Amino acid sequence: MIGADAAGMSAASQARRLRGPDELEIVAFERGRFTSFSACGIPYWVGGQVPDRDALVARTPEEHRARGIDLRLRTEVTEIDVARGRVRARELDSGTETWTSYDKLVIATGARPVRPALPGIDAPGVHGVQTLDDGQELLDTLARTPGRRAVVVGAGYIGVEMAEALINRGYRVTVVNRGREPMATLDADMGRLVRRAMEGLGITMVNDTEVTEVLTGEDGRVRAVAVRDAEFPADVVVLGIGVRPETTLAQAAGLPLGEHGGLLTDRAMRVRGHENIWAGGDCVEVLDLVSGQYRHVPLGTHANKHGQIIGTNAGGGYATFPGVVGTAVSKVCDLEIARTGLREKDARRAGLRHETVVVESTSRAGYYPGASPMTVKMLAEHRTGRLLGVQIVGREGAGKRVDIAAVALTAGLTVEQMTFLDLGYAPPFSPVWDPVLVAARKAASKVRENTS
Amino acid sequence: MIGADAAGMSAASQARRLRGPDELEIVAFERGRFTSFSACGIPYWVGGQVPDRDALVARTPEEHRARGIDLRLRTEVTEIDVARGRVRARELDSGTETWTSYDKLVIATGARPVRPALPGIDAPGVHGVQTLDDGQELLDTLARTPGRRAVVVGAGYIGVEMAEALINRGYRVTVVNRGREPMATLDADMGRLVRRAMEGLGITMVNDTEVTEVLTGEDGRVRAVAVRDAEFPADVVVLGIGVRPETTLAQAAGLPLGEHGGLLTDRAMRVRGHENIWAGGDCVEVLDLVSGQYRHVPLGTHANKHGQIIGTNAGGGYATFPGVVGTAVSKVCDLEIARTGLREKDARRAGLRHETVVVESTSRAGYYPGASPMTVKMLAEHRTGRLLGVQIVGREGAGKRVDIAAVALTAGLTVEQMTFLDLGYAPPFSPVWDPVLVAARKAASKVRENTS
Repeated sequence: MIGADAAGMSAASQARRLRGPDELEIVAFERGRFTSFSACGIPYWVGGQVPDRDALVARTPEEHRARGIDLRLRTEVTEIDVARGRVRARELDSGTETWTSYDKLVIATGARPVRPALPGIDAPGVHGVQTLDDGQELLDTLARTPGRRAVVVGAGYIGVEMAEALINRGYRVTVVNRGREPMATLDADMGRLVRRAMEGLGITMVNDTEVTEVLTGEDGRVRAVAVRDAEFPADVVVLGIGVRPETTLAQAAGLPLGEHGGLLTDRAMRVRGHENIWAGGDCVEVLDLVSGQYRHVPLGTHANKHGQIIGTNAGGGYATFPGVVGTAVSKVCDLEIARTGLREKDARRAGLRHETVVVESTSRAGYYPGASPMTVKMLAEHRTGRLLGVQIVGREGAGKRVDIAAVALTAGLTVEQMTFLDLGYAPPFSPVWDPVLVAARKAASKVRENTS
Repeated sequence: MIGADAAGMSAASQARRLRGPDELEIVAFERGRFTSFSACGIPYWVGGQVPDRDALVARTPEEHRARGIDLRLRTEVTEIDVARGRVRARELDSGTETWTSYDKLVIATGARPVRPALPGIDAPGVHGVQTLDDGQELLDTLARTPGRRAVVVGAGYIGVEMAEALINRGYRVTVVNRGREPMATLDADMGRLVRRAMEGLGITMVNDTEVTEVLTGEDGRVRAVAVRDAEFPADVVVLGIGVRPETTLAQAAGLPLGEHGGLLTDRAMRVRGHENIWAGGDCVEVLDLVSGQYRHVPLGTHANKHGQIIGTNAGGGYATFPGVVGTAVSKVCDLEIARTGLREKDARRAGLRHETVVVESTSRAGYYPGASPMTVKMLAEHRTGRLLGVQIVGREGAGKRVDIAAVALTAGLTVEQMTFLDLGYAPPFSPVWDPVLVAARKAASKVRENTS
């Protein structure tokens, strides 16, 4: 195993479940100090909702070792020699390098944060939040630095979550965002709802803006973030620009990469053209079942599924990954944000002509206490009426409602078929017409109108 | 329209949307004083969460009349003359009877509460909760009666919700239940979780017990509920035993009824064998897509859908009802209870051999604040692995998770196909493996084991 986080260690654990230590020797190389941690939990740890780092570790090195996995921390694989079936690894503390041969190889090298080549980007006070070490360093900076001004670069999931975390810590937060609205994983009309909620929290959103430089003070620490025609003072800067597949090793070894830089695998998560090499998690590309194209979707839930599948196959069983439909949920304060399937631009890019509807509904029966507004955007294919995507922004109960659409996308349902889905109804849970059904009904009607 | 509640008035409104008053005259007969009210909201009104009766009325008589519907309240249809295409109706206040002829007839007579023929059942202080008038009478009794002991007969949705409502009003509540556990819509192992929550609220649950008599005092009012070998003192008694289709008129007119006493319709919600008569809502039986058998499922959400379909067809359009999968959600205090598809006994009755799993998971990532336990029971067909049913009991986020299974049932997915569904994941919403996925994975594994 190269990499001992979600995908790698799920694979190791599952393979061990199927094959005991007598049958299968498992060696896992990890350049960091932690295993199986929840990167998605880092914003909540920084924000104070999760009390400590250990809570984010699903399984410790000791627990893995107790299950018969030879785990080598602070040991970085520096080369994959596919022809001879071996990897070279360096112990980071001693510098010692050794070759280890394998019968089966699992590549789970994850992703690396995008770090634009800007002047000052490496200055003290500028932080990524990809690993537990990153999180700890950020928390140390926050504890040491008296100032209370923060700039977050990027307004995707991580950027938005980090902005809220810093608000929770008492910071004045500015988010600098290249896109028209935050959450570019949504269409801009839905992203606008997110911006309003962020502004409601006191976050300053600066959209349509590229960072040009990180400015430092006389002490060499960050003091501001510069954009084309302005400067935003900053005692701390958090980079939340996104991640790219970490496939340097794989590329050097000549393994097949896709257009997003991720490894390409078959359904069994084997690297294409290689019988005995598997890859999963943030370093691979996955098939988007709606567009029919490959995407990079770095999410812990996929990494865990990949690991499960790889471990099953490497352990002599059979499992396959069907692909994704592009589901993601997030939260800013009490605003829940969800999407699945294609946005308008994705549909166009995939060659799919579409009808779009946006409906306003409520989370519960209108008369039931706590009913809150919910906006549902739905895309259906022109003429066939096949569901193409759903975006939902609302409060309690909005986020996981997207699962209805995720299953419908998987099953290839049309919006007409969705109109009378038998969804759970009771006043504390939904209006008699669930917001997703209201959207489906309207979308079906639009498909019919534009077909005739 | 016979009946001006959810199904009837949805039909009227939809037909009116398609056909103006010049094209289509709509007459709606309603024996009660209200239209389009939410019967499902009554427990929350009695419990005090919904401030007043008017909040439960989705659309008032005046609003319907303003849309060109000739609404006749306190007017009961007493006969359907199918041969001559007319109905006889009696104005309840004056006693006047008149015949009205129709080109198209919609039967939306709803359901009537089961009222066992027990001694004392009609005594003052014994209440049903089917209509707004029922709710008002119960509230009047509660206001007038100094005692604070209540007995609820029946432990289905209504019984359980009414028990909680009375607890909220400061009553000592005993629930007398014929079944082994409350919520017979769940298997007993899941119902036990509901019982524990009810007992946690201070409700006394008496299971496996039939009421034999309602005992009255010298003033003629209820004073206790008797069972075979005990008496439970009661200042008020609420009947929540369930409902039956109200099809007296339809039966007298020779229209086709099913084994549960509900009207039988075709896909377009037309009464079978009758081109110009439609029926929908609580007075019809619906096709259960999982068992392939007809059931009586009195739920406001179906009534609204039926009304929509009937109004579309009667207005010259085209819409069909696909059937149900048996989804229902409910709440006791903060416990959420959900089911869809078949219980174990339903599966046996339908001739479906099944595998069953029960898993314990959590509503959110374990480390995220507010993560709470969730129990998911899943049934899959033996050998094919087709999903047959899901029951979920948990706290926040448990109830609507059942929609995942509702869509999967509609699409005919197997539990193997469900294992890698791309469901929304983020720490505030779900563990990396959603509880439904955990159950699917385990069920798939069991199906494989028992097939080989």
